[in-house]
Amino acid sequence: MFRHQKELQFEVKVDRPDPMLARQIQEVLGGQFGEMTVMMQYLFQGFNCRGEEKYKDLLMDIGTEEIGHVEMLCALISQLLDGASPEEQAKAAEDPATAAIMGGINPHHLIVSGLGAMPTNSNGVPWNGAYMVASGNLLADFRSNLHAESQGRLQVARLYHMTKDEGVKAVFRKMLARDRYHQYQWITAIKELEEKNGIVVPASFPPEAELESQEHAYELWNLSEGEESKAGPWAQGQAPDESGEFVYVANPVAKGQAPEPKVPVTEVHHDLDKEFSNKV
Amino acid sequence: MFRHQKELQFEVKVDRPDPMLARQIQEVLGGQFGEMTVMMQYLFQGFNCRGEEKYKDLLMDIGTEEIGHVEMLCALISQLLDGASPEEQAKAAEDPATAAIMGGINPHHLIVSGLGAMPTNSNGVPWNGAYMVASGNLLADFRSNLHAESQGRLQVARLYHMTKDEGVKAVFRKMLARDRYHQYQWITAIKELEEKNGIVVPASFPPEAELESQEHAYELWNLSEGEESKAGPWAQGQAPDESGEFVYVANPVAKGQAPEPKVPVTEVHHDLDKEFSNKV
Amino acid sequence: MFRHQKELQFEVKVDRPDPMLARQIQEVLGGQFGEMTVMMQYLFQGFNCRGEEKYKDLLMDIGTEEIGHVEMLCALISQLLDGASPEEQAKAAEDPATAAIMGGINPHHLIVSGLGAMPTNSNGVPWNGAYMVASGNLLADFRSNLHAESQGRLQVARLYHMTKDEGVKAVFRKMLARDRYHQYQWITAIKELEEKNGIVVPASFPPEAELESQEHAYELWNLSEGEESKAGPWAQGQAPDESGEFVYVANPVAKGQAPEPKVPVTEVHHDLDKEFSNKV
Amino acid sequence: MFRHQKELQFEVKVDRPDPMLARQIQEVLGGQFGEMTVMMQYLFQGFNCRGEEKYKDLLMDIGTEEIGHVEMLCALISQLLDGASPEEQAKAAEDPATAAIMGGINPHHLIVSGLGAMPTNSNGVPWNGAYMVASGNLLADFRSNLHAESQGRLQVARLYHMTKDEGVKAVFRKMLARDRYHQYQWITAIKELEEKNGIVVPASFPPEAELESQEHAYELWNLSEGEESKAGPWAQGQAPDESGEFVYVANPVAKGQAPEPKVPVTEVHHDLDKEFSNKV
Amino acid sequence: MFRHQKELQFEVKVDRPDPMLARQIQEVLGGQFGEMTVMMQYLFQGFNCRGEEKYKDLLMDIGTEEIGHVEMLCALISQLLDGASPEEQAKAAEDPATAAIMGGINPHHLIVSGLGAMPTNSNGVPWNGAYMVASGNLLADFRSNLHAESQGRLQVARLYHMTKDEGVKAVFRKMLARDRYHQYQWITAIKELEEKNGIVVPASFPPEAELESQEHAYELWNLSEGEESKAGPWAQGQAPDESGEFVYVANPVAKGQAPEPKVPVTEVHHDLDKEFSNKV
Amino acid sequence: MFRHQKELQFEVKVDRPDPMLARQIQEVLGGQFGEMTVMMQYLFQGFNCRGEEKYKDLLMDIGTEEIGHVEMLCALISQLLDGASPEEQAKAAEDPATAAIMGGINPHHLIVSGLGAMPTNSNGVPWNGAYMVASGNLLADFRSNLHAESQGRLQVARLYHMTKDEGVKAVFRKMLARDRYHQYQWITAIKELEEKNGIVVPASFPPEAELESQEHAYELWNLSEGEESKAGPWAQGQAPDESGEFVYVANPVAKGQAPEPKVPVTEVHHDLDKEFSNKV
Repeated sequence: MFRHQKELQFEVKVDRPDPMLARQIQEVLGGQFGEMTVMMQYLFQGFNCRGEEKYKDLLMDIGTEEIGHVEMLCALISQLLDGASPEEQAKAAEDPATAAIMGGINPHHLIVSGLGAMPTNSNGVPWNGAYMVASGNLLADFRSNLHAESQGRLQVARLYHMTKDEGVKAVFRKMLARDRYHQYQWITAIKELEEKNGIVVPASFPPEAELESQEHAYELWNLSEGEESKAGPWAQGQAPDESGEFVYVANPVAKGQAPEPKVPVTEVHHDLDKEFSNKV
Repeated sequence: MFRHQKELQFEVKVDRPDPMLARQIQEVLGGQFGEMTVMMQYLFQGFNCRGEEKYKDLLMDIGTEEIGHVEMLCALISQLLDGASPEEQAKAAEDPATAAIMGGINPHHLIVSGLGAMPTNSNGVPWNGAYMVASGNLLADFRSNLHAESQGRLQVARLYHMTKDEGVKAVFRKMLARDRYHQYQWITAIKELEEKNGIVVPASFPPEAELESQEHAYELWNLSEGEESKAGPWAQGQAPDESGEFVYVANPVAKGQAPEPKVPVTEVHHDLDKEFSNKV
Repeated sequence: MFRHQKELQFEVKVDRPDPMLARQIQEVLGGQFGEMTVMMQYLFQGFNCRGEEKYKDLLMDIGTEEIGHVEMLCALISQLLDGASPEEQAKAAEDPATAAIMGGINPHHLIVSGLGAMPTNSNGVPWNGAYMVASGNLLADFRSNLHAESQGRLQVARLYHMTKDEGVKAVFRKMLARDRYHQYQWITAIKELEEKNGIVVPASFPPEAELESQEHAYELWNLSEGEESKAGPWAQGQAPDESGEFVYVANPVAKGQAPEPKVPVTEVHHDLDKEFSNKV
Repeated sequence: MFRHQKELQFEVKVDRPDPMLARQIQEVLGGQFGEMTVMMQYLFQGFNCRGEEKYKDLLMDIGTEEIGHVEMLCALISQLLDGASPEEQAKAAEDPATAAIMGGINPHHLIVSGLGAMPTNSNGVPWNGAYMVASGNLLADFRSNLHAESQGRLQVARLYHMTKDEGVKAVFRKMLARDRYHQYQWITAIKELEEKNGIVVPASFPPEAELESQEHAYELWNLSEGEESKAGPWAQGQAPDESGEFVYVANPVAKGQAPEPKVPVTEVHHDLDKEFSNKV
Repeated sequence: MFRHQKELQFEVKVDRPDPMLARQIQEVLGGQFGEMTVMMQYLFQGFNCRGEEKYKDLLMDIGTEEIGHVEMLCALISQLLDGASPEEQAKAAEDPATAAIMGGINPHHLIVSGLGAMPTNSNGVPWNGAYMVASGNLLADFRSNLHAESQGRLQVARLYHMTKDEGVKAVFRKMLARDRYHQYQWITAIKELEEKNGIVVPASFPPEAELESQEHAYELWNLSEGEESKAGPWAQGQAPDESGEFVYVANPVAKGQAPEPKVPVTEVHHDLDKEFSNKV
Repeated sequence: MFRHQKELQFEVKVDRPDPMLARQIQEVLGGQFGEMTVMMQYLFQGFNCRGEEKYKDLLMDIGTEEIGHVEMLCALISQLLDGASPEEQAKAAEDPATAAIMGGINPHHLIVSGLGAMPTNSNGVPWNGAYMVASGNLLADFRSNLHAESQGRLQVARLYHMTKDEGVKAVFRKMLARDRYHQYQWITAIKELEEKNGIVVPASFPPEAELESQEHAYELWNLSEGEESKAGPWAQGQAPDESGEFVYVANPVAKGQAPEPKVPVTEVHHDLDKEFSNKV
């Protein structure tokens, strides 16, 4: 069960309204790697967690924090939209200089939400559940979490350069710091799990020869012209768990057959190979 | 530019048709972490790559391999659907024993694709471009790649237990091995990049105090009841890049204000706080 | 069965082309609460109606009217796009003043539809069937209808302030009037149903203690800091159907357990709690 | 900012696993009117609220409660999936009697989430942001809230009949009671707003003749054969706000023109009316 | 403007309820090529039509007919769902023989629509506007129409074999006949347009050498192993408009460069090629 | 299995960066009829092909070519985005003249992809699998292919007028030529199939009276006011396969009944026709 307090996690106070920036910030609210994604991702991983209590508690700590981040971004976007009423926009259109940015405004902010944040990305595409990940396998999911925090911080860093508004930048600095911590957090959690179970997901699938085609577990197939990829650590030497040695297959040969699917019965209506007379 | 040869990368030969399994396998073809996702993800990362040639070549090698994996899965699904014509399904419905699995068949395989694979997941939801990731930041993207291969191998491992068909299992063993290699590959590539640039994405965003709120970059906020999360390596000791020391904030206090958004002008039509008379 | 006549329900004649406005008006054509939504919603409710004939006829009357509203908006958008050919847009780009609004044009109107309306919202997101509602329960659905007409009229009212085009405003005035009538219509229909069956949906689910947890049917749980919500009519006095008295739970206590989901069998591959050795 | 406590709002304890029911219950978790929708809807309405404090507090109270309902449903679904591992499902398939329900299981529960709840509906379609509503206009939004609680309670009532599991039914009884209260709550809040501002949304759009086509604000257009719809209170007598009298237009006549859109310039490539010679 | 009459275009009377068939028929109602698609496609093409009156009238004739087909399919699905209440389904589950088909029922028909048709396909994916086509170019669009009627008739033909219900088959026979006529209709309309303007869309784009790379307009590039494709009429002889001669390029050579995209400035945060030190 | 070579199929070299054009070109990369669609469409049709080898080889030739077209467009978009870093965009905003086009930039190109192409259309809507077609019926699918190439060439022709960049135009000229060839190709393939099997899809569904309602296979129902549609070749004379004669039904009469769906049992909770008393 959850509870809410009135204050935001960090202060949000913009210097001046900027509806085009409001649109751009929607990306880190309702985009593929926005706060809605990590909020729902950590909550679902926490709700579904069947493992050690410390992992579940960690997921609930950070999932609950992220609900507050969604709240912060909504406050930020509301402030950036102040003074952008439909009528004020129409007036702006008469002056080319101020009209210049009009096209960049999300029309939803004027027509649909009435100057409030939307559960969508910077192009107005609604957030959806397929952005998030909760597989039950902790190592797989923590890798997703590390990845999401990486993309999230990258996007905030890019946004940081798109405004000179010091109030907005102050909020971004908080978000950059939290995204930094969250990357540390998942890096250490991943390390702990890898040391316990090994680095391949899922660890519980036995790699013995009878269950996995071991001979193909160490090969780089050179299917793109050029052998530049041979220069990396993925092409030679021991696999990182020292279970085998990498092989660079410079001239890969197909090992399968040319498929020859069966012609189906007439009721499938593929209309192949046959003489039909559909004239009366 | 690409070229195609007739043979499949590995042999695909099922023991017997099984349209319910065909539906389930759609998940690793057209689902969130199916082969279509990694194929498009590696190709777009490769096409857009502005970095060292060896990374681009690696992405093109594996992206090109994955087109062939989509091809293999289509061949697998076609074979599993043989003998599942609409009319045969209708006959099956008369015998409860054989009808038992009918409900589990994807109706698209009968009605839409005529016994062929679909670009959808196991519930018939179409694959979409928001499943994939190509941000231009190599470390961020390689973390996504490692994660995608982890989920992909996890899903194939689960599917492995859902059939006794030895032909299908043989294909899965190949896929499990390749997914193992691909995890190794991204693990080593990530390690190389982290050693070069550091472990936080993006490395190029300066972490100095004036640009990032350093004080919040090491704190775990305990927002969920219980202190079990304190027990992990993310709550104490040095950050993994030794840039600071973790702090467990047992009783976090909000640092922001209670937001008080402005009441907008009448043309936004929020209908707040005012006496309206809409009667003529 | 339906029939079509050539004339529009109301006259549509814009003063001058305005492709940015054409984009904005897409919201009330193909958006969440656009005319496509109410058209499909009333038609499906009417087609599926199993109740009294007068309700079905009402739904068919208004559903059929709404097909004509989709038609009117398509005519409006076509006129606003006249003179916005790809070449004319390219020329406009050379003059900053006239280029100012270019960014606000939906590129689909130039590239995809060739200056015609699209079945999408103002951000180009396609209309979809999950916007509409047809549950079979008349009171539930009439509440949806009242709501949809409320959002629809609100959006048109906001759009009204975004243009000075008197021809467009004349069309909006017709739409505002119809949306006003449709709100009246559903208000009176809802009142009739509530008087017959009661105000809680579904009325046919027995509220007796053995089937519903009556003790929780009148409580406001104060889960957000502050007791301002106590001041409303929802926190004290009789429920509107006088079936019980409201209770303000100032300090709510969780009544459930802390969930402890079972650790699944190995084949689920959660990789928990166990020592795995995946090294050969 | 939010906080989480370990206990669920109400106890969740199923009698026995039932993976088909787990799939069906996904509807009220991640469907159009599931708990994810009302959770996000109330939170966004609360975050964006620019009106009286008591409304904002009410929205935050109930929005915060709904996060806990999502949590409860995840616990419920996890319990119903216990014992439904991929391998156990494969075994079940050999016995027609127990296999009967297999087809009805969501394959995502086995392959993707590893026996956990998913952010999707009962057909596996991901939840998306276009399910929710937050327009800034309180009366419009409260009508949406009343409607959502109506559909939600209706769906739970239908689900109630689909199982004999007393543990599940006990949870449903709690949900039915809360949905009853939430309907009361929005009914009283709506009544208060209607008494203040009037019953038409938005109240702030002036209905005077020069701004709205008053003559069309009271007419029922009989566009579907039969005059059964004339029998309702929407076809005669005063409008509910007594601003005018209803008119039943038995034989409606179109008031607009037959549209004659202009033929566009060649660069639009409509290929109309002209003789082209594309032969060299 | 449109009008509705009570009778269906053709009689709809099923022999017996069959909720699994109801689900399957959703494909031809709300699927990619269902009646909703052609209805919206013809209406939008008609609304947006800027060409000869006879084409616009034809589009409106058939678009209006298709609204009636949506109506017929809704009636058909309602009848097939009679007797499939949630409670009756729960009872059925106790008998393996009758339970066999339960898994194949769309849970939305029980929980969401209350035994009515849904605006979704056979897997419950909502219909969306990107299924339809209205480009303004008549020849392009008529090709889409011919194609849609081809897929539509194919799907009904497949469905025809999935039931023995003579009432349902009678409806299908009507739909097959109408889809046959509609194919004829678009074939003749296409032929007329091709004779007027030529067979390449768009005809108005000049094919002269300075605007189009004529040398590549007749080449088949053999990029897939094997020269079987050389055997077809597309590989040799005159193009069908006799504007040039086909060329079979057995060994195609890339004509472009290996792309070398520029390394972007630091603010894009690609983190390439540089030594970063983000350690304090 | 596939292989990749470094060079692009055709040269790609733009005159100057133009991020607004980059957005517009996304349409022919990731839109409904973009290169991703034809690439996936031809590959799936080829993978699933159960017919003559020459058709399969043709599909694989062109499908493989289209992967290279996706590659070319990614290279084109990357070049157009050069010099459009977030910081440069922010600077541009200070000068009204250069800011004019800012609103037209896809924010994803700055924030999400870091100046790379995205798998989305020109409005940022992700590509999805429901854009493509692979039904197993060759004639139906080839009609789809002809249609897709028609829309594709139409869109490129429109884009051609939206820029003066000669480098971009040179790429378009190549694409226009290839789309011209691909239209020829499918036209000849369709002609061959129609001559073999007849022109109605599917040919294998017997048209005899007992299986199809022949009497309705030649009728144009005049459901839209006016008889202009009577003037076309679809309204009189022989059907194109000479199987019957067209009939113009000037005053069509409904042949079905007015549907009267049954009132469902109480457990469906339609709350109809009954007196409920839910007051305590």
